[in-house]
Amino acid sequence: MSRRSRVIIVGGGFGGLSAAQALKSAPVDVTLIDRHNYHLFQPLLYQVATGSLSAGEIAAPLRSVLSRQKNTRVLLGDVRDIDPISKHVLLADGASLEYDSLIVAVGSQSAYYGHDAWREWAPSLKSVEEAINVRHKILYAFEVAERIADPAQRRAWLTFVIVGAGPTGVELAGAIAEIARQTLKNDFRSIDPKEAQIILMDSAQRVLPAFPEDLAQKAKRALVKLGVEVQTGVMVKVIDKEWLNVQTHDGMNRLEARTVIWAGGVSVPALGKTLASRTKAETDRSGKIIVGPQLTIANYPDIYVVGDLALALDPNGKSLPGVAQVAMQQGTYAAKAISRQLEGKPKQKDFKYFDKGSLAVIGRWSAVADAFGIHLSGFPAWLVWAFIHLTYIVQFQSRILVFIQWAIQDLTFSRGARLITGTAATDFNFNEELASVVKPADSSKVAVNM
Amino acid sequence: MSRRSRVIIVGGGFGGLSAAQALKSAPVDVTLIDRHNYHLFQPLLYQVATGSLSAGEIAAPLRSVLSRQKNTRVLLGDVRDIDPISKHVLLADGASLEYDSLIVAVGSQSAYYGHDAWREWAPSLKSVEEAINVRHKILYAFEVAERIADPAQRRAWLTFVIVGAGPTGVELAGAIAEIARQTLKNDFRSIDPKEAQIILMDSAQRVLPAFPEDLAQKAKRALVKLGVEVQTGVMVKVIDKEWLNVQTHDGMNRLEARTVIWAGGVSVPALGKTLASRTKAETDRSGKIIVGPQLTIANYPDIYVVGDLALALDPNGKSLPGVAQVAMQQGTYAAKAISRQLEGKPKQKDFKYFDKGSLAVIGRWSAVADAFGIHLSGFPAWLVWAFIHLTYIVQFQSRILVFIQWAIQDLTFSRGARLITGTAATDFNFNEELASVVKPADSSKVAVNM
Repeated sequence: MSRRSRVIIVGGGFGGLSAAQALKSAPVDVTLIDRHNYHLFQPLLYQVATGSLSAGEIAAPLRSVLSRQKNTRVLLGDVRDIDPISKHVLLADGASLEYDSLIVAVGSQSAYYGHDAWREWAPSLKSVEEAINVRHKILYAFEVAERIADPAQRRAWLTFVIVGAGPTGVELAGAIAEIARQTLKNDFRSIDPKEAQIILMDSAQRVLPAFPEDLAQKAKRALVKLGVEVQTGVMVKVIDKEWLNVQTHDGMNRLEARTVIWAGGVSVPALGKTLASRTKAETDRSGKIIVGPQLTIANYPDIYVVGDLALALDPNGKSLPGVAQVAMQQGTYAAKAISRQLEGKPKQKDFKYFDKGSLAVIGRWSAVADAFGIHLSGFPAWLVWAFIHLTYIVQFQSRILVFIQWAIQDLTFSRGARLITGTAATDFNFNEELASVVKPADSSKVAVNM
Repeated sequence: MSRRSRVIIVGGGFGGLSAAQALKSAPVDVTLIDRHNYHLFQPLLYQVATGSLSAGEIAAPLRSVLSRQKNTRVLLGDVRDIDPISKHVLLADGASLEYDSLIVAVGSQSAYYGHDAWREWAPSLKSVEEAINVRHKILYAFEVAERIADPAQRRAWLTFVIVGAGPTGVELAGAIAEIARQTLKNDFRSIDPKEAQIILMDSAQRVLPAFPEDLAQKAKRALVKLGVEVQTGVMVKVIDKEWLNVQTHDGMNRLEARTVIWAGGVSVPALGKTLASRTKAETDRSGKIIVGPQLTIANYPDIYVVGDLALALDPNGKSLPGVAQVAMQQGTYAAKAISRQLEGKPKQKDFKYFDKGSLAVIGRWSAVADAFGIHLSGFPAWLVWAFIHLTYIVQFQSRILVFIQWAIQDLTFSRGARLITGTAATDFNFNEELASVVKPADSSKVAVNM
């Protein structure tokens, strides 16, 4: 019996998982390698960050998603290197695996454009860990503000800045505004959470730059109605622990803010850079690997790059956006290309992205949607959004829970997952922060000032 | 206007929260202080540890539980000291608060009986953080076993030891057995999770020592049926990273096991010891504070101790168990005592525990229950268990979700919250562990040996 062809897929995100699933009936041995044991539904990560959902509710164990696919093996591991000549991938634990075809789907990571020091004060939102860190920051800010008597300091703790007004930034800003205006409405005794200032900023001239102009305007109006202050055309120059400097049309502006969240941009993970250098692949300025019309790297027809790491062009020469839809279609395409080759069939037509549209949600029961040229906003757009997201999640986990959770929450404004847990105590030293602002002299106040 | 009487409650567990809620209509200013921002439903913590539930599903933010109770303020803080003479509590952040009445409800922590070094290899299950740590250990063990070729090492990774056969130990053992036999059934390619050995041990002569004999027997039979090996009358002598030594009737026994979970016993938290020393209160050997019939400390009629920290006696002179029911009834009692005193009413009758019975769940649809002398087991007991636990949870959060989650899970054996996240990578170095067992020579095997 001849050996079965081996396909290695690196990354269990939208691209990698779609590829694995599309290989279900192919006569191949598939190994899917990921550093995490779960597939994460990233578009809802902002809901973990804002306490609406628990991480377990938007993630599915990769093993369980693929458990019935007998030709597929899941490997928990960290790919450190790829040798495209001997056709091996090397794991951090020392194991090295040989492939016949390789699909690289390692996604993207947040980019601070040369200001990596900002990461400490302005976490981003790409992983479960980061989302939980952001959740802690938001919740702690209200806790600290509750304990502070000084109005200026209190104001700084109640100022939330979101840098980047793409879908994630817009969704985060809307959710934080709802937390402040509704969820926490009755929860504090010294502060009024409604005083919180939520600022969404972008260097572009409008929010949702990738959306049509009219929808961006509608999104902006919806945000303002929720109490978000939208600042466009401003450049962030410095982010520090307690403040940030932004350049506006009128000059430099200093903003006192203790909570800054980075929804700014993406870059290529280390393995993407390694792969580019090993294959001498062409990349764009951000490090994305330029792939051919069949999604392979030049001179390496057995290496497919899909999802955020790939720079693929649409027929107009415009690069495809880094969204789940693109990654999923590319993953499926790569899987089919491998199957057809093994079956001796002629090559597929070149990859063509079928754009089903864009969506962004803005608070409860409100969204903007651009689907096949139809522009929706408000509740109809929210329904489309909810339907699409739930369909996807339900596929993996019978997670009708998420829907029920939303229903409860949207009716009651409560947020079930408002826990501060884990390493929060070390990430953010609550007692130390307070010790610096709570003077012994305040002590009687705390008790009396009910 | 005369100043309102100030009640400080330290701890937002079952005892503290019940006290706060019972003071809802009292003419007092209540301050509830907890180190966490949530009330935790500890009896279900084992379900977080075994991936059935997310932490957010068994916890409710204290602020939101108490948001509509206008006389009550929640303070996120760490109480370091209590001065019973000047009537102040001191927080780690430097603030000091004055009280007229104090209710101390700080609960218990796990005890390693002088072997604190064991904690590193045998985590316990008292907090969300520990539960998530235990979850990681369990899931990682299967991941590592999947990658190991050596049968002895693989066996050690697939051996799970639970020390302590009280309700938590029994529930954990049952849940791990179900994970191995059902949930992960199809998830691996090299190992068969059903080979996992789950050992539940206790130095007592039977499981559930606090339960009636016949129910303990039934629980044991149910556990054995699930595939749990029950070892009673054995003493743990040493726990190390890769093995433990236990003393049996036949002598010393060495057990190779990479996952040991401590469900062994409880001790008094630091603040409990501080309070005892400041008030010169009598304590038992474990440090519990002996309270009078009105749950106050001798000579300090304004300091109530409720829940696990208190040693209260039933009419037969037997000490009350450290369970939620006792803590809740004591919290309510203390609150009423304070109210009555302010209203100038005569003192309440001495505290009397109303025992509604004991419950322990053993895997899916099976439990043992002892309620008012009626002994139930199997499905009827499980129904009682589910009803009681859900009623409690629903009170706080409309958390009908938990019920739905159980329903899905019990029908499908899936576990949605099987995520390995956060500091797992540092708590447990997967790559390093693997590097020590995955030889480069194994590499081809990993890929081919599907």
